[in-house]
Formats: sequence, structure tokens, C-alpha cells
Amino acid sequence: MFITLEGGDGSGKTTVIEDMAALLEEQGIPYIKTREPGGIEIAEKIRAVILNPQHTAMDPRTEALLYAAARRQHLAERVEPALSEGIFVLCDRFIDSSLAYQGYARGLGIEEVLSINLFATNGRMPDITFYMDIEPEQGLARISSNQGREVNRLDLEELAFHHRVREGYQRVISMYPERIQVIDAFGSKQEIAELIKNQLLRAIEEFRHSLSK
Amino acid sequence: MFITLEGGDGSGKTTVIEDMAALLEEQGIPYIKTREPGGIEIAEKIRAVILNPQHTAMDPRTEALLYAAARRQHLAERVEPALSEGIFVLCDRFIDSSLAYQGYARGLGIEEVLSINLFATNGRMPDITFYMDIEPEQGLARISSNQGREVNRLDLEELAFHHRVREGYQRVISMYPERIQVIDAFGSKQEIAELIKNQLLRAIEEFRHSLSK
Repeated sequence: MFITLEGGDGSGKTTVIEDMAALLEEQGIPYIKTREPGGIEIAEKIRAVILNPQHTAMDPRTEALLYAAARRQHLAERVEPALSEGIFVLCDRFIDSSLAYQGYARGLGIEEVLSINLFATNGRMPDITFYMDIEPEQGLARISSNQGREVNRLDLEELAFHHRVREGYQRVISMYPERIQVIDAFGSKQEIAELIKNQLLRAIEEFRHSLSK
Repeated sequence: MFITLEGGDGSGKTTVIEDMAALLEEQGIPYIKTREPGGIEIAEKIRAVILNPQHTAMDPRTEALLYAAARRQHLAERVEPALSEGIFVLCDRFIDSSLAYQGYARGLGIEEVLSINLFATNGRMPDITFYMDIEPEQGLARISSNQGREVNRLDLEELAFHHRVREGYQRVISMYPERIQVIDAFGSKQEIAELIKNQLLRAIEEFRHSLSK
């Protein structure tokens, strides 16, 4: 089962993915926890090109293609091998991030960015996606109070961009209402953990049911 | 006017592009001579990832996306600004290389690789393309006798790959018979230079005619 986590910066994805990992552990389900570029050497090098703060001349289409390239390599080297062995994959961000960030917020078009990403994923989509919904002001406030996290080029973008990202996610959710579960990230950590737990257990149940058919 | 040159390794593209540059000079036509990544910093860094001999785990789809990304950046930073000022652009390899190498020879599908490249070029196509047609055996023999040229990962691919590349170019030519002029690269340097000169002058005439309409 391929599970992805999405959301704006500071939406609490890291905590949630830890909760999900703990739940799978508890259930005795073999899993890996990953995020692009996931330590895959080629993908790491691509990401270094994307996030280099000196690359101010980077064209938005170049950026979208580089994300798709890093996604492909991470998928081919890490995600697909695990899935083919029946290992669950928890992935922090995947295709929906590109649709919301590059497709909508950067104005390249969700459909156009989807087409290069379908090339990258060769049609592989997550079985379920949790989207952590948060007001950009709150998300960015969380980041700046969290000193352990490195600040990159994207963090420096203006707030308006993060609002467009959130709008982009709304569009993507409307395209995939079955796959994407929206989680209110304003809630307390405990409330969120409880919600995720219930939804994930139900999704696993449905997944197993669909396999046994 | 956007002029591209295509062909397998060792097909003599470098000599031909010099001939074309000399002709444009003679005609008093402002031009730039370039090739991807063309000294564009971001594109150079992408190319370094592609050609690194240690990257044996590189997935063919990753490679195709990286070529498209480098193409986009070179196009945005160098080609489009020149064309918008009325400067002719002579470019050593462009979209057709990806269609022949990744689309056909690597088996990703010409149509699929075309779709990510149309995203990269945002629809920009060359006005005219010269394809230097040569038997792979002859092309590779030329390379190995030319000590000034560095040998990269692609040169190490087996001969069968280069035959598939040539077949790929044949397919691409059949898709764009109007745009792509096939040049027999077996001929003497002088014969080829004469042929290119005549075809290029005629193409420039037609291009100017189309502009004045």
C-alpha cells in the first residue's frame, strides 16, 4: 500500500508521518518511511540543483521537470521495489505537491504538470493521500519557531505564494476526492493523531479487502 | 530563425555548424552558435548529473526528464532572448535528439518523450533542422580517431544502441518531413559544405519571404 502525505510548509506533516509509522509498527505491518529525494544519490543531486539559493534564474518549467526527474528516480529505486515486496510505503510529499506548487501556484497549469508527472510515475499513483490543511500564516509561524529545520529558497517566497499553494491543493482534491483525505491541521496533536489513526486503519482494511477479492 | 543540427555521434555535426556559422557571417546575418547546456549554469549542473559515469542506476525516464529540464533552461536563458531580438540561433542538437535517443532507442516511446519536451519548449520548434545521416560504425570510428573529444557514458553504449538511434531518427524525420533536411554524412567535407550552403540559403530566403508576408 502506497500512502502519501501532503500539505503546505509547517502543516505538521512530520509529526503525522511519525504517528502513522508507529501505528503500522503496532499492527505488525512491514513499511518504509521516505520522502523525495530519500537518500537516492541521483535524486539528491537533482534536489541540490533545485534548492540552490543561487539559482534565481531557474525557469518554473525547469523546476517542474527537475522535481519530476527526482520523483522518478526515488520511485524507481526505493518505492517500487518496496511495493513489489508487499512493504507499505509512507511518503512525505509526492505528485500532488507538484500539481499544487508548480501546476497551480507557479501558474504552469495543473494538467500540464500532471502530464510530465504521469510520465515520471509511469501511472503509479498513491493508494491513499492525507492532506494536512492549514492557513499559510499559521504554517509559516510554525516553521520560524522551529529552529531545527533548515530554511531553503522556497521558504523565502512571499506569503501570497503559499496562499496560491493552498488553493492549488483545493483544486487537486477536487480532482481526486476518493484518494485524498483532508485533515484539519489546526487541531491539537492528539486530535489529529486520533483522526489519522481511524482513517488509516479503515483504509488498510479496505485495501486488504480489495486485495482479497 | 532557429536552426538545429542533429545526428548520431561522429556524424560531423561540429564541422557543419562551423560551415553554417561562416555562411551567416558572410551574409552579414547576426547569429549565435550554441549547444545544450550552452554554458548556462543550471543546465550545466543538470548535464553533469546526466553524464556522470557513476550514475549507472539512472532510470531512462529520469534521464529523459533531465534532458528536458536542461533544454528548458538553455532555451529560456539563451535561445529565446536571441530569437526575440531577431538573432539567428544555430543549435547543436535539440528536441529531435531526445525523441531518437530516449523516445526510440531507450524504448520510452517517441510520443511520450515528445509530450514532456513540448512542456519543456512550451511549443517552440526549430524553423529548420539538418540531420547528418551516417552508419553508426563509421560515426564511432570517427570519434575514436578524434583524440580531442572527451568520451562520456553514452559513447560506451553498445553499437546496437547507436543503430536504434539511427532508426529513431528515421521515425522522427517521417513525423516532420518539412522541417528536417537529411544530409548524407558519408560525403566529402566539401560536398557536404556545398549542400548545406545551398539548403541553408534557400531556407533563409523562404524564412524572410514568410516574414514579409
